[in-house]
Amino acid sequence: MKEELMRKVQLTDKEMPTQWYNIQADIADLPEYINPQTKKPITAEDLSPIFPPEIIKQEMSKERYIDIPEPVQDIYHTYRPTNLHRAYGLERLLGTPAKIFYKYEGGNATGSHKLNSAVPQAYYNKLAGITRLTTETGAGQWGSALSMACCHFGLECQVYMVKVSYNQKPFRRTFMQSFGASVDASPSPKTAFGRNVLATMPETNGTLGIAISEAVEDAVSRKDTNYALGSVLNHVGMHQTIIGLETQKQFEKIDMQPDVVIACVGGGSNFSGFAFPYLRDKIQGKSNVRVVAVESSACPTLTKGIYAYDYSDVGHMCPITKMYTLGSDFMPSGVHAGGLRYHGMNPIVSKLYHDGYIEAVAYGQLDTLKAGLFFAQAEGIVPAPESTHAIKAAIDEAEKCKEEGVSKTIVFCLSGNGYFDMYAYDALLKGELKDSTAPEIDTSKIKLPEIQL
Amino acid sequence: MKEELMRKVQLTDKEMPTQWYNIQADIADLPEYINPQTKKPITAEDLSPIFPPEIIKQEMSKERYIDIPEPVQDIYHTYRPTNLHRAYGLERLLGTPAKIFYKYEGGNATGSHKLNSAVPQAYYNKLAGITRLTTETGAGQWGSALSMACCHFGLECQVYMVKVSYNQKPFRRTFMQSFGASVDASPSPKTAFGRNVLATMPETNGTLGIAISEAVEDAVSRKDTNYALGSVLNHVGMHQTIIGLETQKQFEKIDMQPDVVIACVGGGSNFSGFAFPYLRDKIQGKSNVRVVAVESSACPTLTKGIYAYDYSDVGHMCPITKMYTLGSDFMPSGVHAGGLRYHGMNPIVSKLYHDGYIEAVAYGQLDTLKAGLFFAQAEGIVPAPESTHAIKAAIDEAEKCKEEGVSKTIVFCLSGNGYFDMYAYDALLKGELKDSTAPEIDTSKIKLPEIQL
Repeated sequence: MKEELMRKVQLTDKEMPTQWYNIQADIADLPEYINPQTKKPITAEDLSPIFPPEIIKQEMSKERYIDIPEPVQDIYHTYRPTNLHRAYGLERLLGTPAKIFYKYEGGNATGSHKLNSAVPQAYYNKLAGITRLTTETGAGQWGSALSMACCHFGLECQVYMVKVSYNQKPFRRTFMQSFGASVDASPSPKTAFGRNVLATMPETNGTLGIAISEAVEDAVSRKDTNYALGSVLNHVGMHQTIIGLETQKQFEKIDMQPDVVIACVGGGSNFSGFAFPYLRDKIQGKSNVRVVAVESSACPTLTKGIYAYDYSDVGHMCPITKMYTLGSDFMPSGVHAGGLRYHGMNPIVSKLYHDGYIEAVAYGQLDTLKAGLFFAQAEGIVPAPESTHAIKAAIDEAEKCKEEGVSKTIVFCLSGNGYFDMYAYDALLKGELKDSTAPEIDTSKIKLPEIQL
Repeated sequence: MKEELMRKVQLTDKEMPTQWYNIQADIADLPEYINPQTKKPITAEDLSPIFPPEIIKQEMSKERYIDIPEPVQDIYHTYRPTNLHRAYGLERLLGTPAKIFYKYEGGNATGSHKLNSAVPQAYYNKLAGITRLTTETGAGQWGSALSMACCHFGLECQVYMVKVSYNQKPFRRTFMQSFGASVDASPSPKTAFGRNVLATMPETNGTLGIAISEAVEDAVSRKDTNYALGSVLNHVGMHQTIIGLETQKQFEKIDMQPDVVIACVGGGSNFSGFAFPYLRDKIQGKSNVRVVAVESSACPTLTKGIYAYDYSDVGHMCPITKMYTLGSDFMPSGVHAGGLRYHGMNPIVSKLYHDGYIEAVAYGQLDTLKAGLFFAQAEGIVPAPESTHAIKAAIDEAEKCKEEGVSKTIVFCLSGNGYFDMYAYDALLKGELKDSTAPEIDTSKIKLPEIQL
């Protein structure tokens, strides 16, 4: 096939990786998780009220590669391997000498990469005899994915959806209900924690941190119920590495290597999944690829937060982890990129950023959604607001290439589609979209837990 | 790979067919189109105010295979070949010995099969120096596809959207606007025909027939503008045959053949594209596969209409064709399957149905949307309301296999996803969905044009 017609790089089912990559094997001195009650390092037993044994094992594992169980591979095969696309349309509109690629994770039925971790989490819980899962969701992508995965394995699913997204995206609720899930706006009256928040802040938009606390409280209170998290923790990022591992195989197939790897970052699941295989090569000294994490300027965890032990949820029920944080009571404005509104960050992403392996950049929602619209018209896919952050960064890199007259290879992860985000695009098209306000961050005022190790 | 893990049959880019199949080559005595003004057979010249030369040539061609231009193949490669899925989840839930497959056309950015014809139509118009296209859309799938295709080739796009769908699916409008299209509810005040309908029937839901008349009037009145149709005509069905041709290649790859081929049918584009390659084999005496067209009982063109020359639009501007029809003034109820609300039918589908090559069945919207929800929970894809008609028929066939204890191979076309149809599923989940009312059809009262050939 002629080079100019190579619109995408495919993989066959047989070429799909059969192991996830566990980056913990390549990081020597990863800080331990702390139990928020005892303030001591967390044990497997501490996690057992909410997670099944295999998930806990993976969370703490140092094995470099972990087999993907056959029933999980089986469901992966319904939508994976995903294609690596060459963005000829975008290159042409930008007039850039850069070669731009994107890995598209929005083509599956739930519209985002989140399914990659929802499927194994539902599977391991089913194996452990659990019959019901609770979770939180921001934009609704994780909730949709877990609803679908639970439906497949015959588990009940209870979703606490951050209120601002619940109101912005009413059809996300219907979509999750189509898979049999129960969906409540968070804070909700269903949990003691939710009732408390509603009493003290009745007008709150909700946050991922609040929704996490509700989902965990619900799971702890019932023996048949566990909790499933869509981001932040190690096992979630590890499940997502199928994205980056496939991408590497696809670049090998066309005998190319990216110079810049870009993904959006909220809690870190998409970024981890896409970038960890590249960071492995970088840590091992085999590559000097640039790796860029793109966050929302409404929630600038990496670019303006501090690296410290902090609570991972508002209710202080979940592990205290060393991470970049804006403080567990940080309240971002109600930007459309609901998946990027988390106060903290995956601890490994945090450490690798701290150690200089990762660059970070933050953008506002007006710039990113404009980039999303530009991308839609160039490539024919309307992206999720989260994904537009990666697009904006890729465009900026491509513009730099144009200024400097160099032809770099840029790849970004298009983590999801924007079918359920038409509110945002509608506002943009009508000229009514408000830009996100970048918060004033006084790092000296962030309230951190007292930890003595 | 183990047979039980063969979730899908893939094709590589190189295996994608490079020609469309033109079934006109295999049908000897196809009735001619009639000019609604002169009542004489239509000439290429009659069609030139609204179509470019290559489309007119294709519409009348007797060549069996027509090359897909390279720029069209190029865009096809951004989303094709599409996968043929084995519906293991559905088979398991039904407990049927049948083997159920579906060809999934909803994975592309515009969410349906419509892109397969939108891309070549935009391309041929661009070649002919046209800078603006008009069209009608029912559910919004065709309008979305043409908006995207026009955006790609740098053409303006004006969409007349049937009012009932415009109101049911506000985000479809935003979606089309994201690709730069102008979208108006039809009947609209933009055309003389629309103003006339609004004056006489201000409360009308609109129909595809009315929207077609508006789009044609707009195209005829401007030299820079042509009209693009998403269904009914021969060239549209031919562009769609890439679906069935791929499906045949995929079954060959696994050394299987379907016993029953099923697709929903409104104007006939999806059905034609999926079934014509199978009907070719049947006409040529090489196959006795059953081919089933599934329509909405709210608009039962095949099952309750008559086979006669009739107007293809309400305004009587488009060709009179011999087809199954309920009369050009037939007004179906506002079912969610907006794409199945057309009073007529593709003339070739009509003839082959009349000649006994095709079976037809009609279902109401309660049964079909329930089947859609069942399918979503079984297979993880929420289908478009149109596609649920094919699903319902496939389930009924599979249930029959169970009763009879036979293991037939059933394949259906999943023509689109239901991301923009959450209104329908929301109503169903709340128990508020009204079933469609099957109209009383008195065929003796259908007003037909007088044709003397």
